[in-house]
Amino acid sequence: MRRLYALFLLASSILSPLKIYCQSDEDMLKSIFNETLTNGRSYEMLDYLSNEIGGRLSGSPEAAAAVEWSRQEMMSLGFDTVFLQEVMVPHWVRGEKEVVKVINSDRLGTFDLTACALGNSVGTGDLGVVAKIIEVDGIESLRKLGRKNVEGKIVFFNRKMDPTHISTFAAYGGAVDQRVFGASEAADLGALAVVVRSMASNNDDIPHTGTLIYKEGVKKIPALAISTNSANLLSKSLKAEPDLELYIESHCQMLPDVLSYNVIGEIRGSSKQGEYIIVGGHLDSWDLGDGAHDDGAGCVQSIEALRVLQSIGYKPKHSIRAVMFMNEENGLRGGLKYAELAKKNQEKHLAAIESDRGGFTPKGFTLVGSEAAKAQLLNWRPLFETYGIYDFGKPGGGADIGPLEEQGTVLIGFLPDSQRYFNLHHTTADTFDTIDKRELELGAASMAALVYLIDKYGIDGKN
Amino acid sequence: MRRLYALFLLASSILSPLKIYCQSDEDMLKSIFNETLTNGRSYEMLDYLSNEIGGRLSGSPEAAAAVEWSRQEMMSLGFDTVFLQEVMVPHWVRGEKEVVKVINSDRLGTFDLTACALGNSVGTGDLGVVAKIIEVDGIESLRKLGRKNVEGKIVFFNRKMDPTHISTFAAYGGAVDQRVFGASEAADLGALAVVVRSMASNNDDIPHTGTLIYKEGVKKIPALAISTNSANLLSKSLKAEPDLELYIESHCQMLPDVLSYNVIGEIRGSSKQGEYIIVGGHLDSWDLGDGAHDDGAGCVQSIEALRVLQSIGYKPKHSIRAVMFMNEENGLRGGLKYAELAKKNQEKHLAAIESDRGGFTPKGFTLVGSEAAKAQLLNWRPLFETYGIYDFGKPGGGADIGPLEEQGTVLIGFLPDSQRYFNLHHTTADTFDTIDKRELELGAASMAALVYLIDKYGIDGKN
Repeated sequence: MRRLYALFLLASSILSPLKIYCQSDEDMLKSIFNETLTNGRSYEMLDYLSNEIGGRLSGSPEAAAAVEWSRQEMMSLGFDTVFLQEVMVPHWVRGEKEVVKVINSDRLGTFDLTACALGNSVGTGDLGVVAKIIEVDGIESLRKLGRKNVEGKIVFFNRKMDPTHISTFAAYGGAVDQRVFGASEAADLGALAVVVRSMASNNDDIPHTGTLIYKEGVKKIPALAISTNSANLLSKSLKAEPDLELYIESHCQMLPDVLSYNVIGEIRGSSKQGEYIIVGGHLDSWDLGDGAHDDGAGCVQSIEALRVLQSIGYKPKHSIRAVMFMNEENGLRGGLKYAELAKKNQEKHLAAIESDRGGFTPKGFTLVGSEAAKAQLLNWRPLFETYGIYDFGKPGGGADIGPLEEQGTVLIGFLPDSQRYFNLHHTTADTFDTIDKRELELGAASMAALVYLIDKYGIDGKN
Repeated sequence: MRRLYALFLLASSILSPLKIYCQSDEDMLKSIFNETLTNGRSYEMLDYLSNEIGGRLSGSPEAAAAVEWSRQEMMSLGFDTVFLQEVMVPHWVRGEKEVVKVINSDRLGTFDLTACALGNSVGTGDLGVVAKIIEVDGIESLRKLGRKNVEGKIVFFNRKMDPTHISTFAAYGGAVDQRVFGASEAADLGALAVVVRSMASNNDDIPHTGTLIYKEGVKKIPALAISTNSANLLSKSLKAEPDLELYIESHCQMLPDVLSYNVIGEIRGSSKQGEYIIVGGHLDSWDLGDGAHDDGAGCVQSIEALRVLQSIGYKPKHSIRAVMFMNEENGLRGGLKYAELAKKNQEKHLAAIESDRGGFTPKGFTLVGSEAAKAQLLNWRPLFETYGIYDFGKPGGGADIGPLEEQGTVLIGFLPDSQRYFNLHHTTADTFDTIDKRELELGAASMAALVYLIDKYGIDGKN
């Protein structure tokens, strides 16, 4: 009896890899989703990354901890290789809590606005900045006002995210130029500082940070975000009292670059080892929350995608990698370095999937690639409809994988539901308690499923 | 100049209703979604219902407040008629906080389990119940054990919701028989009481209440839910120590029926006044949370659907109603009364839409109706895809509208994303702070859009 059982075990061990390859795509996707929903590790991983390590801006000790954590995590999962890529990253620090207050209102006296410095901004120093305020609804309006109306003032950018866009990312895209370029545009006209309405879908008291880019040759002036409630209050107050003055104080500064790393876990391909399919997220986050959605979710989903395929016994033809990119938020150095090394090492990257839109219920995948690639992605859609995933092929990739485009890599963006994202994006509210375990897992499973399909059928990167 | 302007105004007022009728369906849906996302009232209404009134179980003072609130709210919106339908409802009260504890563990001593009485359950009285525990994974296993193993014990139903179902409602449907029928099945075999694993997708310390139904002629025994963490702990403990005893104490009771009401707001049809399209939710909720998702959301979305159509100047051909059903949770008396009166008053109900699956991002609509009705619903799907809404025509209606089926009414269930719902369903965690404004509004807009399409094109109720 024992001998029979041993024979049975032997037969199983020989046949089970075969079984995987005899399965239909429908059955494979079912295995992937079942494994993720039953034995998923992504939620537990994200708990550690969010609650034990927390916010992890590039160059911080927490970012270093996140590098070591993800390296150990992928080692412990038994991937074939785990390795680091060196990358020098900017090191911006926020310093003491920012102050923004209206100081001369006859109606309300002195009152505070909730605020935070924008990433990469210079600080005001201890003495702060005091000036009159000029409100504008964007860069174009600012330019029309010209130097005579702007010089010596604090510019208040107050264009809202348009609520009628169904994708909140479209609404974000329509407003974020104020945050990214507003400071230099205002400085060009002699402004002393800028405050920007937070890039938020909702009205509340939470300011949203995010990166700004200073234009070369233009004076760097302090830039802060104020919460949407504060922006509404300030705008209303300015209508009643146009001569209001603002006091702003911030202590942020840019320190010298720091050595950091992309962290990469790899399962080697069986027949096409030198060709890669990657899934990734960015390991750095802003300092204010714990970066659970942006982009802890994308990191753990990427690791989980590899774990699930490994766990159900799937042996990929191509080499597949989970890539934790460093410094997406305020520099993109990790994404640039990854593409640079891929080129240098002559690694052919077939497709790159990025998850960086939060850990919410999956809706589909976006694409930057050839018409053939798009047709193929759309062709796979019926397989995903069973899982409530319907939205395929709209244009879009991801910031970190973007630099791979010129190497002919098909770029794919994971597209989760976007409605809640810009309530918490880049804020103290981006915390683990807003993550739903099943939503996170369904995203990881859909990413694993897409890796499987690309590995099996390939995808045409040529235009 | 002023005269010209007056002429312009006059022309506008004549032409604007025409304009609405010259719009394409695409434009009408855009108007509906834009109005809801820009000037929506549903979030504000739900804030009041949840935070000012709170939990509102049938027969409670809070349920009476909810009736009066929704009547006033719909009056203030200027609907053509707002009226009440009398309905006698059960009046179950929870009484003092329940106690469930293991009292004789050698390993852990005495320890508490987090618990709540099931709705409609009898209480244990002050002395509680003490007995050994028999764990089963469902009613079938219980029956197999037979009287000799069950008599004098407390039955512990511990079958989980299956995490591999993508719709959490399917997982709920696969487990909820334990909660609804477990008590009478156990009593039939001489059990003293039952504790049931909470109907929850996640593991936490929050017990989920919900209705039970006692079988006629069988002794009514106390029934409580314990949280999933408590169920896991109890199950593990029983493996180590099978002779554990449980002490349970609950003070719930069923009081005499109380007069309550369905609340109905109506916009009268222009050409088919005697034919109705209704949208509804249930006004009652369990007592533990504030009933924001279950089903405050459905109520305010229904009111909002009418408000939006009215606000953009749409004049329906059919009469349309927002119906706040009373007593869905533990009796369905309101839904039964509504259908009874519709029949008696010879009101032809073309279609009934119910929102009772939470206020999350809309995914589509389910249907109970003819093949022609299904084909028509699927035909409208492309109009909704722009709004991320893809899932049409799966079978399903709603509890409150169910009794209308025999009158030939097409039943339609609003289908939002289901992943988070069974973390909070029937618990203290079903609170307004878990509502996302945009998600709620997108649901209301999709319901308004469907009412518009049904009003314009009709829908075939015959099989």
